[in-house]
Amino acid sequence: MAGREEVAFLGPIASYTHQAALNHFPDPHYTIVPQTTIADVFASVQSGAVSQGVVPFENSSNGSVIFTLDLFADLAGRNPDILVCGEVYLGVHHCLLGQHSTPEGQDGTARTPAEDVSGVSPPNKSRTKPLRDLKHITKLYSHHQAWGQCNDFLTTHLHGIERIDVSSTSKAAEIVRQDVAGCSAAISSRMAGELNGLDFLAENLEDNEGNSTRFLVLRRRDDGPSRPDGRAGAGGGEAETDDEHARYKTLVSFTVRHSEPGDLAGCLAVFQMYGLNLTSINSRPSNEATWHYIFFVEIMGRKRHDDSGAVNQALRQLDGVAQSWRWLGSWENALKA
Amino acid sequence: MAGREEVAFLGPIASYTHQAALNHFPDPHYTIVPQTTIADVFASVQSGAVSQGVVPFENSSNGSVIFTLDLFADLAGRNPDILVCGEVYLGVHHCLLGQHSTPEGQDGTARTPAEDVSGVSPPNKSRTKPLRDLKHITKLYSHHQAWGQCNDFLTTHLHGIERIDVSSTSKAAEIVRQDVAGCSAAISSRMAGELNGLDFLAENLEDNEGNSTRFLVLRRRDDGPSRPDGRAGAGGGEAETDDEHARYKTLVSFTVRHSEPGDLAGCLAVFQMYGLNLTSINSRPSNEATWHYIFFVEIMGRKRHDDSGAVNQALRQLDGVAQSWRWLGSWENALKA
Repeated sequence: MAGREEVAFLGPIASYTHQAALNHFPDPHYTIVPQTTIADVFASVQSGAVSQGVVPFENSSNGSVIFTLDLFADLAGRNPDILVCGEVYLGVHHCLLGQHSTPEGQDGTARTPAEDVSGVSPPNKSRTKPLRDLKHITKLYSHHQAWGQCNDFLTTHLHGIERIDVSSTSKAAEIVRQDVAGCSAAISSRMAGELNGLDFLAENLEDNEGNSTRFLVLRRRDDGPSRPDGRAGAGGGEAETDDEHARYKTLVSFTVRHSEPGDLAGCLAVFQMYGLNLTSINSRPSNEATWHYIFFVEIMGRKRHDDSGAVNQALRQLDGVAQSWRWLGSWENALKA
Repeated sequence: MAGREEVAFLGPIASYTHQAALNHFPDPHYTIVPQTTIADVFASVQSGAVSQGVVPFENSSNGSVIFTLDLFADLAGRNPDILVCGEVYLGVHHCLLGQHSTPEGQDGTARTPAEDVSGVSPPNKSRTKPLRDLKHITKLYSHHQAWGQCNDFLTTHLHGIERIDVSSTSKAAEIVRQDVAGCSAAISSRMAGELNGLDFLAENLEDNEGNSTRFLVLRRRDDGPSRPDGRAGAGGGEAETDDEHARYKTLVSFTVRHSEPGDLAGCLAVFQMYGLNLTSINSRPSNEATWHYIFFVEIMGRKRHDDSGAVNQALRQLDGVAQSWRWLGSWENALKA
């Protein structure tokens, strides 16, 4: 593909997925374009409208993103060529964004975090103190996943304040920017605060310091590696080492034959047989029949071009045990040990 | 326990969990009491305030109820004595509840489903037709899980109508009852429609005819079986048969040692080693460290009182492989094959 490549991400602008996309594709060679839903990101990669896509996969506090799993399950057969070719870990640090309590104080300097002015200490469960007085805040906007991640702060400093769910944390910041009364606040990202010119009333609201989200980078099956470092591709040719196993991850989905008891264990045993470390398991309704599931396993190692190696052998074996299965990609492990 | 036993369920009155509780405890010997959250049901069983509790566990279309899994994970150690002692499968059939378009027609007969009066057929993706004209409906209330389950009906018959998320489907019916203008409708249960005296504008809205939810019945570890048929208890003494395996289910949670690659597969292999059919797997963030998980497996068979039998042997073996594990109960399989 000559010239600029387009990369789709789950929007809007200033969403956490946008930050993940910017971290992974810092090169001006890429144009990154927001999409409204995770399904739109899959569709634009599948159709070839963009060369790659970025979607959220799991959060360290909230768990898996089931919309993404269901799109990988692809029961309607809309995304047959989607492969994972990379991952991005992003620390998720929520800010309380709004307007400083005294509207006349809202010059450019008002956005600089000030010292703690919250007065007497409340019964402090929260590891974070507000940077500004919060007495004027009567309404909070955020994505519903954020409330649970900021429980201690909200209980300690904004107890009983009305909460309104909106479609994304960046949408929340946009709504608060338009509030002329200045009595609402958003839980959103630093980037959304800067984009909307809002005051930072508090930072690092999340209960869990390690709160992070993992995003997956998608490409189409036909397309080769699009990064010079070959991050998107699967290897082959050379001898397989333990180091190679630790350097890569592979995602596989499968369904089991319900007529055969023990098939789920049989499918999982295949990976153990080839010494492949299983790092996660998820299941979702398969919808082919009530109470049937599709399973997703992530293993260390990669499927190789030349069909050598443990992952390739395990997948050949899986073919004899599973009712159906699909290799959903192999990519470089981005998690620092 | 003498006299009446109290059973807690996830309320409010006329919720699907309420129906599941009524199905499982039809005996007037039981008083069933609504709780506001799933956590409240766990807490009231743990404290002994009630003898049993009923909580939703998974829906055939939407998958696992993560709030219930997180309460079983019990990372804060609040529910150490909770055990599953039964399950209830309930077909979930959503109704569109509101007021008949002509308020003067609202006598007692208005609630009886009438023939199709929706006029010309819309582009009919939906398997269900309205029983009444829906032109006057300008606002819809329901629990957020219900929208996705009724997608075809909503797209075909109520496209573009404003949707408002509320805390439960029965709450939605209550709000609609209070709407004097009569322009709102709720997606809710038959029971909620009857309780609130609302008209049935359509029935069986769900896309998937088999749409059902599985509920679990909880008791405290100390308490013996509280039903004469011993449904809550684990057996022992007699020889174990294949039939016994098929008749019971067992839920186990475990965490793995992250220092040892392959431990997840090793834990799962234990169940296979003893011929136990693994029927489902779930994982949730364990929150002891970022990207560590707690796994939930369901197997056929039961843990026996006398420590004989395959489940008991597997659990002894699991103790040597898992970092931590917990038996969460054994109960009679209620799923008709």
